[in-house]
Amino acid sequence: MKAVVFKAPYELSVENVADPKIEGPLDAVIRITTANICGSDLHPYEGRANLDAGMVLGHENMGIVEEVGPGVDRISVGDRVSVPFNLACGTCRNCNNGYTSACLRANPSGQPGAGYGYPMMGPYWGGQAELLRVPWADFNLLKLPEGKENESDFTMLSDIFPTGYHGAEMAMVAPGKSVAVFGAGPVGLMAAHSAFIKGASQVFIVDKEPDRLALAEEIGATPINFADMDPTEAIMEGTDGFGADCGIEAVGYQAHDHTGEEHPEMVLDNLVKVVRATGHIGVVGVYVPEDPGATNELAKEGRVAFNYGEVFTKGISLMGGQCPVKKYNRELRDLIIRGKSKPSWIVSHEVSLDEAVDAYAKFDKREDGYTKVLLHP
Amino acid sequence: MKAVVFKAPYELSVENVADPKIEGPLDAVIRITTANICGSDLHPYEGRANLDAGMVLGHENMGIVEEVGPGVDRISVGDRVSVPFNLACGTCRNCNNGYTSACLRANPSGQPGAGYGYPMMGPYWGGQAELLRVPWADFNLLKLPEGKENESDFTMLSDIFPTGYHGAEMAMVAPGKSVAVFGAGPVGLMAAHSAFIKGASQVFIVDKEPDRLALAEEIGATPINFADMDPTEAIMEGTDGFGADCGIEAVGYQAHDHTGEEHPEMVLDNLVKVVRATGHIGVVGVYVPEDPGATNELAKEGRVAFNYGEVFTKGISLMGGQCPVKKYNRELRDLIIRGKSKPSWIVSHEVSLDEAVDAYAKFDKREDGYTKVLLHP
Amino acid sequence: MKAVVFKAPYELSVENVADPKIEGPLDAVIRITTANICGSDLHPYEGRANLDAGMVLGHENMGIVEEVGPGVDRISVGDRVSVPFNLACGTCRNCNNGYTSACLRANPSGQPGAGYGYPMMGPYWGGQAELLRVPWADFNLLKLPEGKENESDFTMLSDIFPTGYHGAEMAMVAPGKSVAVFGAGPVGLMAAHSAFIKGASQVFIVDKEPDRLALAEEIGATPINFADMDPTEAIMEGTDGFGADCGIEAVGYQAHDHTGEEHPEMVLDNLVKVVRATGHIGVVGVYVPEDPGATNELAKEGRVAFNYGEVFTKGISLMGGQCPVKKYNRELRDLIIRGKSKPSWIVSHEVSLDEAVDAYAKFDKREDGYTKVLLHP
Amino acid sequence: MKAVVFKAPYELSVENVADPKIEGPLDAVIRITTANICGSDLHPYEGRANLDAGMVLGHENMGIVEEVGPGVDRISVGDRVSVPFNLACGTCRNCNNGYTSACLRANPSGQPGAGYGYPMMGPYWGGQAELLRVPWADFNLLKLPEGKENESDFTMLSDIFPTGYHGAEMAMVAPGKSVAVFGAGPVGLMAAHSAFIKGASQVFIVDKEPDRLALAEEIGATPINFADMDPTEAIMEGTDGFGADCGIEAVGYQAHDHTGEEHPEMVLDNLVKVVRATGHIGVVGVYVPEDPGATNELAKEGRVAFNYGEVFTKGISLMGGQCPVKKYNRELRDLIIRGKSKPSWIVSHEVSLDEAVDAYAKFDKREDGYTKVLLHP
Repeated sequence: MKAVVFKAPYELSVENVADPKIEGPLDAVIRITTANICGSDLHPYEGRANLDAGMVLGHENMGIVEEVGPGVDRISVGDRVSVPFNLACGTCRNCNNGYTSACLRANPSGQPGAGYGYPMMGPYWGGQAELLRVPWADFNLLKLPEGKENESDFTMLSDIFPTGYHGAEMAMVAPGKSVAVFGAGPVGLMAAHSAFIKGASQVFIVDKEPDRLALAEEIGATPINFADMDPTEAIMEGTDGFGADCGIEAVGYQAHDHTGEEHPEMVLDNLVKVVRATGHIGVVGVYVPEDPGATNELAKEGRVAFNYGEVFTKGISLMGGQCPVKKYNRELRDLIIRGKSKPSWIVSHEVSLDEAVDAYAKFDKREDGYTKVLLHP
Repeated sequence: MKAVVFKAPYELSVENVADPKIEGPLDAVIRITTANICGSDLHPYEGRANLDAGMVLGHENMGIVEEVGPGVDRISVGDRVSVPFNLACGTCRNCNNGYTSACLRANPSGQPGAGYGYPMMGPYWGGQAELLRVPWADFNLLKLPEGKENESDFTMLSDIFPTGYHGAEMAMVAPGKSVAVFGAGPVGLMAAHSAFIKGASQVFIVDKEPDRLALAEEIGATPINFADMDPTEAIMEGTDGFGADCGIEAVGYQAHDHTGEEHPEMVLDNLVKVVRATGHIGVVGVYVPEDPGATNELAKEGRVAFNYGEVFTKGISLMGGQCPVKKYNRELRDLIIRGKSKPSWIVSHEVSLDEAVDAYAKFDKREDGYTKVLLHP
Repeated sequence: MKAVVFKAPYELSVENVADPKIEGPLDAVIRITTANICGSDLHPYEGRANLDAGMVLGHENMGIVEEVGPGVDRISVGDRVSVPFNLACGTCRNCNNGYTSACLRANPSGQPGAGYGYPMMGPYWGGQAELLRVPWADFNLLKLPEGKENESDFTMLSDIFPTGYHGAEMAMVAPGKSVAVFGAGPVGLMAAHSAFIKGASQVFIVDKEPDRLALAEEIGATPINFADMDPTEAIMEGTDGFGADCGIEAVGYQAHDHTGEEHPEMVLDNLVKVVRATGHIGVVGVYVPEDPGATNELAKEGRVAFNYGEVFTKGISLMGGQCPVKKYNRELRDLIIRGKSKPSWIVSHEVSLDEAVDAYAKFDKREDGYTKVLLHP
Repeated sequence: MKAVVFKAPYELSVENVADPKIEGPLDAVIRITTANICGSDLHPYEGRANLDAGMVLGHENMGIVEEVGPGVDRISVGDRVSVPFNLACGTCRNCNNGYTSACLRANPSGQPGAGYGYPMMGPYWGGQAELLRVPWADFNLLKLPEGKENESDFTMLSDIFPTGYHGAEMAMVAPGKSVAVFGAGPVGLMAAHSAFIKGASQVFIVDKEPDRLALAEEIGATPINFADMDPTEAIMEGTDGFGADCGIEAVGYQAHDHTGEEHPEMVLDNLVKVVRATGHIGVVGVYVPEDPGATNELAKEGRVAFNYGEVFTKGISLMGGQCPVKKYNRELRDLIIRGKSKPSWIVSHEVSLDEAVDAYAKFDKREDGYTKVLLHP
């Protein structure tokens, strides 16, 4: 089959590799119809995550079931399905508790949590390819309505829509609440969208890219360009000095100020300032336990020197982590089916698998308005 | 002051009565700007609740603070406020737990729960009048933005908007869920509206009045006229045979079939049929512990012979009761302020206090499209 | 193998039947070490549930894994395991949500929920036998510490300990709460024990059997013999007239007064009287959607004419249904391991499989202090 | 009246000051029967918090109501009461939501949260005195049973028992969970006790003081002396390498290693290591938004450079802050009344008010086994 293969930092190729096949009784093989490029695919692309040459990339996948193992009986050949980016066994303690993001058995390394297209998440090839093997298929796959409708909406169900929603959930967004989202990349936009789905009365969103802020404004969020103004002042003013009820971090450890300098603690510090006492912060921007390439000594060890004293004094709760996609994807799918959600509004480009190398390069440089790219094998 | 006074069943008058005044240090007196007629005002009107002649009616009140007692320091003269229909002390165990609907101290009878305009809810005059005394004013009153904007929206905050929302809350409506609402009176309509605020993907609403169903359709609900079809079949079909995740009862013990015959167990039975196993039912339609005027022996004792065996077998949770308004009114107010909710869409008539007698008569007979009536003193 | 086989009402035999074997890749076969007789085994025994001749009885099972199918990789041959009485697929929507009690796929009849030893719960033989086939073994089985320690404690994990705990959970028992349990059979005793585990300050327990009440008293509960006194008065007095925070129903539709007359609504009525306004009731006593053998017309249709008007007026929540064992069994196991719980205190008899016929007969007649019987094949 | 008055760091005196009196209609004056010295009283004592000379110390108070204002009608003269250390208005948004720890109106500075005996918590004298003025008395005071029984248990209800419990609550301790508590001072001991009340199967507690660890062992906790061993290794080993479900921080920003060197991030780092992926940490040890006296530049600004990257990767929730005492004190009182809790087991000394100066000095130096000191005026 054809697949997007990692060769070296900034060097991918679309080439023929061996077809994945059923390896165990609970496996399925999916014929990919859409695979998205994710912002986190840029970490290995830029050489910031160790990826072995030869790995097939991609963890935002959907398609049609091509073949199933003898132990698969919920999912059938021909089903149209979404593939959650976290790959989970369905029977361990964490899976039992709904934390498929911390499956204790799927990652041979012993670390909780497994996924596609990253060596540290297990030996599972990604789905930017024609075919994808999915272990524990009955547990992992979400059925979608037959046909081709809403393809570019449903494709958001594998990762960024649930991930944004997870941010809103951990921030305890509820009807009437005010929400401050930092970061208007695809995940931040999905967090803002999710906050409205959950009934927020007002959503502020902070970024420095006018095109992303414009996408946020389309769904009713209040854009704040931190290149132009102090975002904490803007939010405090917009909440009559009270602060927002909920804060969502959708940036991560590579946060940089408008001059481009990295400040890992900057976004958390800002959130703590604008979220009111007794409020809640949900973190979906990625922080890492070690970052050998960082310039800062603390950051190398995963330390983030934010004002935790203020967090404590204000009694703010701080929840974060990888999204357990299965916890949310069924209900989000139903919102799409019923026309209550249309997450495809952020899609900027849809290209064929053959164009993937070029799409990566442009997405990495944020050229030509590359916000969210879908690959169609 | 002028007030709507109960004289006898089907006999009200608008007449002059003594002005309410500050009786204790925590009282406030409110100059009423809007007081709604509620469906439950028809119980005493029709003689189905014992009301003493001379009582001033009305528990859906808002206005401007006219005077405060010496212990009131959060609320000030001139504040525009909504008055929750449940009157609560703010310091008893139930108030501490957020159940202002079951205040242990405000009702001298010793029954949990107090309110305006009903002798069994305590000796508190109603607000269909020029002035209203509010005890424990700092605790009970909700501040509104100054001015006159959104008056017919904010007036829903004293009772029916939170009450409908309470139904959705107890039914555990959440993003993506399907919801079946029985009853499209003002509370049922607010329940449907609240279900969408909470992110429902689909809301079915059952009634036999086309004008009410039309109001529900305006906000995107799926109307089901039970005079024309079996509502349980319609909902099962609309959910692909699975049933709805959530059910809301907005009818109460006076439920009657399309021929007009009363069947107190009918709505609960229907809900149990259409709500899926492990689903949730929230009950805001009123059921009473005794109903001496009922024709049925069981109903006289408050007994409702619904299929509880089915409830158990399906593992459905059943929550119900009077809404603790303060639990919700602040957030619902903020949704109105931010333009995310416009509950006034159900208002059919706005009249002066002098026209109240006529309005009651027409509302009771459902004449001239009387759905929701606002009185402006 | 040897097994307890149902022949006809009041007629069982211990006889040789074909060994169960691996039928699908996810099956395991367990060598039973302990299988309990449950109160609900008496329903078919007494002919009150339709059971086909030839069915092997028993749904409270534990043992050692004897063989596993090729798709089983969490559980290994030789593991000591507890088998939850609800048999669940692990991949349907209800299983995903933790409701293994309402699995949508395990019962071929299409009804939610499957189990062992009951034709209406699916074609799965029970475990009062030497061997038991367990489908979806990786999902269903709970690992226990190796060896033989705590056998008579761990055997409670398959049903009644989690079931009693589920009652306490649905009644929202929490530290400091007062609790009223109706029924001091094995499940009621486990509910009382669970209420203390959850931190209750006081637990009342109502029954008419002195030996059961004595077992309750051993763990600190306050026994109330309703043959001697009005239990509602006793509980109101014991809570200074306030009522209990939480109520647990552990009796079911066959509730009878101290003269032996059946009153399906009696226990619910009593609970509604003694649970305080805004309190919570958890129902684990079984109610059925239809009971053709009942003498009462309402009861035949599963209708229970309790005072729902009072439930509404007091704003009491009412949750009930079959326990999803997996939701609780791991944590309860850990309490046993750490010596914090010893549910075996209720065991009255331990006998060999050969003595099962006699044990059933005596348990059915409550002879010789038969409270809880363990069979050891 | 006689009172403990702050003069200067390390300089207190017991002297006569003006009697507090009713200043507003909602005030009460309490005759103190017991006032405890709290570890946080040592911050001003040591000069680490700015306290004005003349302030009366003490925020852990109980006594008998001596006089009430005209607006007080729930509490009566003669009532025995516990005074929560957080002083709250009962009518602001945060009080409505149960966060009396973040009352928006009681502290004239405008900071959320007020209390006794600290200028930054408002102008309210403490209760290490014969009398104490309590504003909003009906809202703030908890009634206790008449008499003198359980005085040294009930006195824990004003602060440390609820505070320890709050730690267990935020750490989501529940039946069967394993818990790691860092810090075995009075709050840590109450956290361990609370963890068992909530049903923990195992509680590890880490400190370096053998007498405190011995107190923890008395209630069944597993003591770990970090002067003797690496506490993270001990806990990982004690949980079979899995980690604890829940972690409680009961140390705070002045954490120091066994050599006495301060490491503000040390305890959080250790907790993150020992709490399992998807676990929960509750922080009740105090962290401050600025600490001008700190030696470390980060600490001066309230920054705590712990491994937040690890927190994110493990998906651990982190909640913390001042305890809202009213949320818990009623239920904890009932556990004491019913004999289910006896928090006085940690009391080391009970002395008269006249001996307070000496008691402070000894408590500060941890002399003579001073663990928890009660003053009886």
